[in-house]
Amino acid sequence: MSKARSTTTAEKRKTNAQALLKHLGESVYDDLDEGRFPSLTLASRSVRNIVYDRKLQQFVLGATTVKKSSGNIKHIRPFTQLVWLAYFAKKLVGEKRTSTLRDVFYSAQAFNIEFQDQAESDELITDLEVLMQMAREDMNIYPEERSAIFGNMTIEYTVPGYEGKKADLSANPDGVMIGPALTTAEFADTDAEMVLAIEKGGLFTRFIEEQVHKKYKALLINTAGQPPRSTRYLLRRLNQELGLPVGILCDADPWGAHIAMVCRSGSANAAHLRELTTPSAVWLGVWASDIVKYKLPSDKLTEIDIKRLYELKSDPRYTEKMWHDELDTFLKIKKKSEQEAFARYGLSYIVDKYLPEKLQLMKSA
Amino acid sequence: MSKARSTTTAEKRKTNAQALLKHLGESVYDDLDEGRFPSLTLASRSVRNIVYDRKLQQFVLGATTVKKSSGNIKHIRPFTQLVWLAYFAKKLVGEKRTSTLRDVFYSAQAFNIEFQDQAESDELITDLEVLMQMAREDMNIYPEERSAIFGNMTIEYTVPGYEGKKADLSANPDGVMIGPALTTAEFADTDAEMVLAIEKGGLFTRFIEEQVHKKYKALLINTAGQPPRSTRYLLRRLNQELGLPVGILCDADPWGAHIAMVCRSGSANAAHLRELTTPSAVWLGVWASDIVKYKLPSDKLTEIDIKRLYELKSDPRYTEKMWHDELDTFLKIKKKSEQEAFARYGLSYIVDKYLPEKLQLMKSA
Repeated sequence: MSKARSTTTAEKRKTNAQALLKHLGESVYDDLDEGRFPSLTLASRSVRNIVYDRKLQQFVLGATTVKKSSGNIKHIRPFTQLVWLAYFAKKLVGEKRTSTLRDVFYSAQAFNIEFQDQAESDELITDLEVLMQMAREDMNIYPEERSAIFGNMTIEYTVPGYEGKKADLSANPDGVMIGPALTTAEFADTDAEMVLAIEKGGLFTRFIEEQVHKKYKALLINTAGQPPRSTRYLLRRLNQELGLPVGILCDADPWGAHIAMVCRSGSANAAHLRELTTPSAVWLGVWASDIVKYKLPSDKLTEIDIKRLYELKSDPRYTEKMWHDELDTFLKIKKKSEQEAFARYGLSYIVDKYLPEKLQLMKSA
Repeated sequence: MSKARSTTTAEKRKTNAQALLKHLGESVYDDLDEGRFPSLTLASRSVRNIVYDRKLQQFVLGATTVKKSSGNIKHIRPFTQLVWLAYFAKKLVGEKRTSTLRDVFYSAQAFNIEFQDQAESDELITDLEVLMQMAREDMNIYPEERSAIFGNMTIEYTVPGYEGKKADLSANPDGVMIGPALTTAEFADTDAEMVLAIEKGGLFTRFIEEQVHKKYKALLINTAGQPPRSTRYLLRRLNQELGLPVGILCDADPWGAHIAMVCRSGSANAAHLRELTTPSAVWLGVWASDIVKYKLPSDKLTEIDIKRLYELKSDPRYTEKMWHDELDTFLKIKKKSEQEAFARYGLSYIVDKYLPEKLQLMKSA
């Protein structure tokens, strides 16, 4: 598929972010001009205001709002912090620079804005996201963690110094990091027919060595455990912009299942965002029932695993029959297993035997 | 610099690994032919046999050896495991496949070789390294963790399907993963004059955005915390094969200092190997004395930090005056700081002001 290069996704995001941030500033000025104490009103992130939306298949924020008013002595601090964050984000976007959450915390000190610790600045950055209804990545604020991508796809970078430069994502067999540049790149050309997200680097490399990208025309993504938000955002873009089905392969334990679920339906922490989920993504495995079916080497579930399984059973994201059944199977067999356990049948078994069976699921999805 | 492509490093490693592994197998056959119980003799890895070599600036194993004989009922299990590991490694190398430590643990089950858990197979893999005096990476066995590289350098891959294929390490501004393929690549062409290893992804991205690779002709490596062995191996190759000086930038705390030290002088765990150190590598910062000099935002040292500092003070790798003085300064000021703390002076300060001062150290080293 090929795409005409008019306005890039990155340019659209930038224009949108700048407009929203400017609007926030203007609302403060307007309040002042009209003799009011400036204030900001945003959706509440209290647990009671986080509800599961079955249609969107993700958590969303309810109707309760909170107001931060400079007229209230208790609010002056968070109000000021929030306005400064908006100022700093606008500066980042304008200068086409990115920053980590940690950088933001330290940068505040240059402006005599006080955050007690990074936890506090992270909280306020989330408030800014809620206020703007926009992900911090759109404001060029990224986390530390990275995952990687590999496959037959040409992308076009949009970051400064790289505007319009193309890169072939099959040029480096260890994969390319998914950071700010890749997340904001345009998809120029690919013959891929699906995306496979994999929990671990070892299996990611195995898939590349076994040519899964060619055999199954798949883009491969190493989520490196629970994927960072920018990786989830990229999964959604590949799904929505290119119409590629997304399959997820994780360890057969509650933590692996939840990686698949967060890729699909997001997290409660990001209930205020809509760009981090891929509702059509398919959990390919490794399922609890696969441990039985494939006679996989396994370990006993720990107390913590079992506690976690009961938590997931009461989680609204897990109500679909197939997910719920697998949670029950874990509790019944009291075993867990790993992706690498298939090596018991030889290193290529997972690619030659297991994967083709599982890919049927994506066709029927 | 450019290099004639005759025998690649990867080919040499492969030939060497195969010869050594074959030799191990032959010694077992010879024992059998001559009516002896086969046995393997390797250097002891007990704490008392790990000594610091001031000339090599790394730990080495002493003269004590241990013998694993199939004639001793207690030794049959580790002897068999070791011989199987050698067989499996030879198969990997022959088939040009890589494997993770976890894969090896599971693969053993296909051969009815028992390992109680991965800790046991990891231990035996280290024994095999000691026996062969060769890193497991040379036997195509890799860990999970990955770090990344970026800069003006063309490499030539040697892994199957990619033999002779070139890649430009400045083509992807988020960096390329350092996995099995990159570790075994040839360095085809670069105008780089130094290597900078950085502890964290955030600063790695900052350096790329601020064009450190151009301004200072530097190859940039994100160690992603304590660097995996393959990254340390790559640092050494860049230093030895290309003659590039290596500088290391970490957080100003005992853990950051130790990342720099392990890049330079290796770890006690790898006392049996010589390919994982870069004795001429320079710890550029962030030093304890930098916290004072640059008035960096800082946190109080914790109990655990202080305990760790006293451990490092009695560590033979830290006897050089400059390192020792910095440990003392940490204990005196009782503060720690992070690389990102420089953001207090603006996001580009660390590149424009701090880095040029520090690079003087590399010239005098």
